[in-house]
Amino acid sequence: MAPLFSRLKTLLSRDVIISSLTARDVRFPTSACGTGHGSDALHKDPNYSAAYAVLTAASSNSEGGSLYSGHGLTFTIGRGNEVVCAAIKSLEPLVVGRSLVDIFTDFASFWHSLTCETQLRWIGPEKGAIHLAVAAVINALWDLWGKIECKPVWELLSDMSPEEIISLIDWQYLSDAITKDEALAILHKQYPSRRERVEDLKENGYPAYITSAGWMGYSDEVVEERLQSALKSGFTKFKMKVSRDLSVDKHRCELFRSILGPDVPLMMDANQCWDVDEAIAHMTALSMYKPLWIEEPTSPDDILGHAKIGRALRPLGIGIATGEYAHNRVMFKQFLESGAMDYCQIDSCRLGGINENIAVMLLAQKFGVPVCPHAGGCGLCEMTQHLSIFYYICINDKRESQMLEYADHLHEHFVYPSIIKNGCYIVPTDHGYSTKMKDQSLLEYEFPKGIKWT
Amino acid sequence: MAPLFSRLKTLLSRDVIISSLTARDVRFPTSACGTGHGSDALHKDPNYSAAYAVLTAASSNSEGGSLYSGHGLTFTIGRGNEVVCAAIKSLEPLVVGRSLVDIFTDFASFWHSLTCETQLRWIGPEKGAIHLAVAAVINALWDLWGKIECKPVWELLSDMSPEEIISLIDWQYLSDAITKDEALAILHKQYPSRRERVEDLKENGYPAYITSAGWMGYSDEVVEERLQSALKSGFTKFKMKVSRDLSVDKHRCELFRSILGPDVPLMMDANQCWDVDEAIAHMTALSMYKPLWIEEPTSPDDILGHAKIGRALRPLGIGIATGEYAHNRVMFKQFLESGAMDYCQIDSCRLGGINENIAVMLLAQKFGVPVCPHAGGCGLCEMTQHLSIFYYICINDKRESQMLEYADHLHEHFVYPSIIKNGCYIVPTDHGYSTKMKDQSLLEYEFPKGIKWT
Repeated sequence: MAPLFSRLKTLLSRDVIISSLTARDVRFPTSACGTGHGSDALHKDPNYSAAYAVLTAASSNSEGGSLYSGHGLTFTIGRGNEVVCAAIKSLEPLVVGRSLVDIFTDFASFWHSLTCETQLRWIGPEKGAIHLAVAAVINALWDLWGKIECKPVWELLSDMSPEEIISLIDWQYLSDAITKDEALAILHKQYPSRRERVEDLKENGYPAYITSAGWMGYSDEVVEERLQSALKSGFTKFKMKVSRDLSVDKHRCELFRSILGPDVPLMMDANQCWDVDEAIAHMTALSMYKPLWIEEPTSPDDILGHAKIGRALRPLGIGIATGEYAHNRVMFKQFLESGAMDYCQIDSCRLGGINENIAVMLLAQKFGVPVCPHAGGCGLCEMTQHLSIFYYICINDKRESQMLEYADHLHEHFVYPSIIKNGCYIVPTDHGYSTKMKDQSLLEYEFPKGIKWT
Repeated sequence: MAPLFSRLKTLLSRDVIISSLTARDVRFPTSACGTGHGSDALHKDPNYSAAYAVLTAASSNSEGGSLYSGHGLTFTIGRGNEVVCAAIKSLEPLVVGRSLVDIFTDFASFWHSLTCETQLRWIGPEKGAIHLAVAAVINALWDLWGKIECKPVWELLSDMSPEEIISLIDWQYLSDAITKDEALAILHKQYPSRRERVEDLKENGYPAYITSAGWMGYSDEVVEERLQSALKSGFTKFKMKVSRDLSVDKHRCELFRSILGPDVPLMMDANQCWDVDEAIAHMTALSMYKPLWIEEPTSPDDILGHAKIGRALRPLGIGIATGEYAHNRVMFKQFLESGAMDYCQIDSCRLGGINENIAVMLLAQKFGVPVCPHAGGCGLCEMTQHLSIFYYICINDKRESQMLEYADHLHEHFVYPSIIKNGCYIVPTDHGYSTKMKDQSLLEYEFPKGIKWT
């Protein structure tokens, strides 16, 4: 039994079980009034939302109330959030009644019991609404675990031995690309120097780039104002949206470059709007604006298409970024082994929570691809900061790989919001996964009965 | 305006609209009493189920009742069916109120409006519960259209011009693999001789192979009894399940070959139970039993894994079959262009209904791969017979490509069940898509309140 896990057994008796799982449909009207927040080529009117899972844990032997609670979420953009909530409820019989110690000391088996349940897997497997629901539940469990250990989740993870970290992962379908021994070697390599990087992070934070200056629906004036403001507050890397309309995109590129100058890193995001050959033509025409990457140039399922686009654009200095819609580790495995991905954009709740995200981080490290998580939305910045901090401490010690998205929306609804200073995430210190939402926000924005929706 | 479509405008005025969409959760306790029906390596206890969509159409100008109704379904295996029903309800605002003529004469646009809805697409896109829901609604629309035209759906499709057929398909993300002109050329090539194949089918039916003699959970005695019975009733091709246990599989292979003899076509289905290298080793060990194909050897998302398995097993005479879990045309595009698939197993309701199935059939034809649909389950035989018949008439005239799955479960719940004679599907003549379930079955098996569940 590994050290952290054996200590867990002294903290918790086996009769502490999950006593309830509830799902709440929380939506923010971000598309209201045509503000353009969050808008891109395919998603013109997102209402940033959360399928919000709350777990309680209690002793099965006592009459008392719950001992702990954990809060997790999956991000969606509005309609369909109720379907994810229904999927969370469908997981209830697999979760409620389970011992916390049993879950955490063999987390891979528990994870597999959700993702490979003999009937539920038909409506996935490991994709769509049911996998988003798994993410919400798994994220809530991590929040719970952090609270039990009185640590932020990044610290809980970074205090684990390499063997403990490996035990979190369901290795099914990965063995042709990475073995457990290879993953262990990656973790052991960084083990002795973890402490140095914790100090570095506490001093310097984790570098972010900002997306929320460049939403598609913003006017030139709003873009300029937001870019200037982001520059002033210390951001040094920026992302803009591109579209099917080349002349619109050229105009927007001119605007960005006129404000940022020619050399500031600028990323472009197509949000899946092109066919493969269109993507190559369009980005060739925009290559003069020196984008660092083009993100989601085509269908998020099109591994071979991304590989082809990458072969065409890399000679122009443009990399391929994707992953926010890549639904499981098997998709990432293929993106990575086929050279279709230069920047690996894990999503904290598209993948099945922290456990699967760690699997993908290890895969990416094996293939030499930096992990630059998707964030923004609702709660994604709160979660991904833990993932990126863990990634730097335990998996990839290269400072030049550090890149984490940021968008300045909806943080005010979280009890422990992510904090940015000088364009960097400040290391969170509150216990858990930073996923707890404020009671008042839940009350006001619950759909459809909250006061903001009635 | 193409001929069939212009005639539609004389049949229907534009004010005939979809007036309601309902979703019903219907489940059959096929796993009860440990019968082993439908069981395989990963799905040990399926309760064959349907997320059942009913559409009505009425004139928006009249006070009268509905003029038509259409019945569609998505197959699931039990738990999670309620999530698909919730997803069908989430599509209601996109469907109810739409003019039937507008839908059918620009079906691709309507299909795209469901699959690329700006908020709902987040929980897919084109995968998982939301895409299964799209399939149920689209299938119901085809049933409705068949009833309006007073034709079975295969005939409705086979009476369309190549241009009309092309207009059904959302071409997004396909242009790097097949152009509309290439697809048109495939359809035009078969156009003059369609009538001959209709006559052939009416005389000979469409050849089936049978799966329901070889479920994993059956005892040797049940397997033997079912195989003998299938042989007697005229079946000439058989499928068996394989597993992670080589000795169990060898025993089962011996049993099958002892009854069937060495040369009868025998297919094997692993239902995703292996990693890539395990699949190669396991099937190499079973190659002495001469399987025609190995189906779903690993994760259904693992295109590159299937390609690797195929390269290893083809020299042993074993082909790769997959597709029942392949969630959209972009996945099939890659399976086909990478040579990962020797038999293309479309699913009538994993893909987004008939429209997307036709896209995949045309892709498969371009890449020279025969389409052998997944059937069985609940209602799949009823639907896929229309698809395979259309495929032979309009896309692939090779009789040696004809292969359609059959399992003899649950047909008694359908008003127009598929009928097998001498191991062949008899061409259906009833109007629509054969998807209407009996009122009594709906009443008894609706979950959780039907009498069979209470």
